Amino acid sequence: MKKLLIASTSTVHGKSYLEYILPELSEFFKGVNEILFIPYARPGGISHDAYTEKASAAFEKINIRVRGIHEFTNPFGAINSAKGIFTGGGNTFLLLKQLYDTKVISSLKNVVENGTPYFGTSAGSNITGLTIQNTNDMPIIYPPSFTSFGFINFNINPHYLDPDPNSTHMGETRETRINEFHTLNSTPVLGLREGSWIHVKGTKIVLKGSLFARLFQKGKQPVELPPDTDLNFLM
Amino acid sequence: MKKLLIASTSTVHGKSYLEYILPELSEFFKGVNEILFIPYARPGGISHDAYTEKASAAFEKINIRVRGIHEFTNPFGAINSAKGIFTGGGNTFLLLKQLYDTKVISSLKNVVENGTPYFGTSAGSNITGLTIQNTNDMPIIYPPSFTSFGFINFNINPHYLDPDPNSTHMGETRETRINEFHTLNSTPVLGLREGSWIHVKGTKIVLKGSLFARLFQKGKQPVELPPDTDLNFLM
Repeated sequence: MKKLLIASTSTVHGKSYLEYILPELSEFFKGVNEILFIPYARPGGISHDAYTEKASAAFEKINIRVRGIHEFTNPFGAINSAKGIFTGGGNTFLLLKQLYDTKVISSLKNVVENGTPYFGTSAGSNITGLTIQNTNDMPIIYPPSFTSFGFINFNINPHYLDPDPNSTHMGETRETRINEFHTLNSTPVLGLREGSWIHVKGTKIVLKGSLFARLFQKGKQPVELPPDTDLNFLM
Repeated sequence: MKKLLIASTSTVHGKSYLEYILPELSEFFKGVNEILFIPYARPGGISHDAYTEKASAAFEKINIRVRGIHEFTNPFGAINSAKGIFTGGGNTFLLLKQLYDTKVISSLKNVVENGTPYFGTSAGSNITGLTIQNTNDMPIIYPPSFTSFGFINFNINPHYLDPDPNSTHMGETRETRINEFHTLNSTPVLGLREGSWIHVKGTKIVLKGSLFARLFQKGKQPVELPPDTDLNFLM
């Protein structure tokens, strides 16, 4: 049975790394004392070691050990024996390219489809969708494809930002960008605000956190979905 | 002799489409009574016809006729006989993919390298750099490459936005994204604020408009460049 937590962000304003979601993680990873960390998105260019250290420091608070996938000489073995997986945020293009280059993408997909609990934040959430085409990141590296895991049957726009009515900036708003996506693609896009996450358990998929999420579907007006909305209609 | 105007944006707050830059365009396209428009970036999914109509309405004010490249059965002939070229903004990934798919990219590169005046805004400016890797756009379509014209020896980040010190949003700032780019790439990036443009004339390349631009170079602190800075040191 598939088990995922797909979070908009690792960090909410005024709190430390993962702090806001630790109670949920404690429940989600119940019975798990070690997880495998995928540090490939390297936020700000941080090293794999330093990023793994950062994740470790947060998970230590709920008594879970973290090991980076880069520490293993056999990453496929590490994936197959992992009791839980966490993919951190950073640059989505870099993350996806690394997943393809290291060839771990299909192994990860396989174990998560078969029940290994998966937690993602930001870029790590983006890749749970069908493609990374709704990332906010800069294309700092060219991946061999935009196709990602497809654990859910739609795409995620993490860190969803509402238009600022007072802005004088003429660059596109997030909503404009997602609407442009829908002139070429029909995949629904869920704009997940910082502090929201999606809980997937088998065929049950629910919006969590205290905020509404904004759903964009081709040819329809966007809709605001309240917390605890059952998202099964998208699957 | 290469002649380019590379503008951050088509529109500044409170003015109509291209209004702020019409005096400069009038000078830049002196003696030209018709230009070829590349509408492929399709902002907001607008049609090629509607986008060309919008460009026409603006250029009409300086007595220049605009014809869209999509109107020609032989786009290569249209490029070779064009007296000036304008590529409008929109989605950079879509623009670049169309330039490759229609195979006009090398013809356009050739005529501009040989002196046909080129004006670009936003996505149309992004592609004058070495790659589109510093676009702000969503990757709504997968181009065969991120490599663009390379009329200048650096990349452009159009609509450059300074970090908002009051923001509680945890998504990356523009500066963070460009710094991430420099952990993997060494191409300099010029953050061009809305209302700025670059004027290229042969080997002379100058920052224009009333604003400073922010230059990012790998391994260096970013620097603020005042209007009229000679950018030749980047070429």
